[in-house]
Amino acid sequence: MENVGTYNFVTESYLVDFQGEVPIPMLGNYMLHAAAAHAEERGFGYADMTRHNLAWVLSRIDIQVDEYPRMSEPIAVQTWVEDVNRLFTSRCFAVLDREGREIVHARSVWAAIDLTTRRPSDLMKLDNFMRFICDKKCPISKSAKVPHAEDAPAIQYQVKYSDLDINKHLNSIKYMEHLLDLFDIEKFRKQKIRRFEILYLAEGKYGMNLSLHLKRQEDTEQYIAAICDDTGKAICRAAITWE
Amino acid sequence: MENVGTYNFVTESYLVDFQGEVPIPMLGNYMLHAAAAHAEERGFGYADMTRHNLAWVLSRIDIQVDEYPRMSEPIAVQTWVEDVNRLFTSRCFAVLDREGREIVHARSVWAAIDLTTRRPSDLMKLDNFMRFICDKKCPISKSAKVPHAEDAPAIQYQVKYSDLDINKHLNSIKYMEHLLDLFDIEKFRKQKIRRFEILYLAEGKYGMNLSLHLKRQEDTEQYIAAICDDTGKAICRAAITWE
Repeated sequence: MENVGTYNFVTESYLVDFQGEVPIPMLGNYMLHAAAAHAEERGFGYADMTRHNLAWVLSRIDIQVDEYPRMSEPIAVQTWVEDVNRLFTSRCFAVLDREGREIVHARSVWAAIDLTTRRPSDLMKLDNFMRFICDKKCPISKSAKVPHAEDAPAIQYQVKYSDLDINKHLNSIKYMEHLLDLFDIEKFRKQKIRRFEILYLAEGKYGMNLSLHLKRQEDTEQYIAAICDDTGKAICRAAITWE
Repeated sequence: MENVGTYNFVTESYLVDFQGEVPIPMLGNYMLHAAAAHAEERGFGYADMTRHNLAWVLSRIDIQVDEYPRMSEPIAVQTWVEDVNRLFTSRCFAVLDREGREIVHARSVWAAIDLTTRRPSDLMKLDNFMRFICDKKCPISKSAKVPHAEDAPAIQYQVKYSDLDINKHLNSIKYMEHLLDLFDIEKFRKQKIRRFEILYLAEGKYGMNLSLHLKRQEDTEQYIAAICDDTGKAICRAAITWE
């Protein structure tokens, strides 16, 4: 298990939500932090990739929460490479509480794009990347298709300075925040999100007028969402399952 | 200098702005993290205060940036208590780059409020708090008054789930984000913010319809801003000085 990386954090009072729990976007933040460190330690970090004219692009992440870490708790985030094929690599995560119990799991899917052509690069050609594949199990079900939600009513949002990442695109974590903000706070008081699946389809850019659509799947606690650009094309889909 | 706390961070690719620099709100985040840890280590952390039915309230922070930390840089945040009087304590910060040069400074002002009465508590009665006062110098000018900006045109913003902190109020860092988002991105491309002063006057609450006002001080590179609640009362004032 030497290729499982473990990164320690202490949750902070100003980074938890109004109920004192680490919310989904912040869990995502810790995971991206762990992923970046794990990749960098193995020679596949942001700077290494840039030298090869490549960049990692997050294509999807499914987060499943058994228990939310609470404020000022020490947590450990484990991450490992689960699989690699030509186009995608899957990276898994487990969040451990102070007793070492795995309370959150996630599976993410990444492509490496060529910075010139913006096309996916063949991961099999990434020198030695495959040797980091690890057989630690990730006990969450494989990704399902996310139905379209574009026919649901929408809220408008314009992409702002604080939404941008270093690639000048809407930050992956900000998509999550904007989607959660579609729910009324009363829902967070009464229920918890157990699974959050998000697919990144295209880049949100500065000033873009986005439409955020949300609808409930009949007779279930699953909601589906879509973020569309100003031409109506979906740049993101999500499925959010409440307990 | 044993009462200067030093906390190490590595800036992350997904937490920098579109120019690869750690933006003001993220600098604020690191500082609040350091402040929380420093207070906790000395028996005045969030949990300790709660036990005494008290909570720290950030009243003001002035951040002065000589140089912005860049992506994947190791930085150290130093913090110390500068002064204490009955109503307020001032806490200073220095951000050091990898060579140990102080590239950012800040001075923050805090009150401790009684959680029942919501009134400020006498800091002189905080057992032994004064002994943490430290004479390290903070080379930024003392706080100036921030002029009113309520007569300037406003943008509307409704407080959402992701804006809230554990006290169910608009998170201190989110005020900063929303204020920076009032500037066009072109300004960030051409200039840098050298000083950011923010006064927290009242609490932003869920669903509140805020007005964000911004205006330029004639013939200067200083902008003043105000965030008002739905009755028009300012809950926050800021002065933002560009180079």
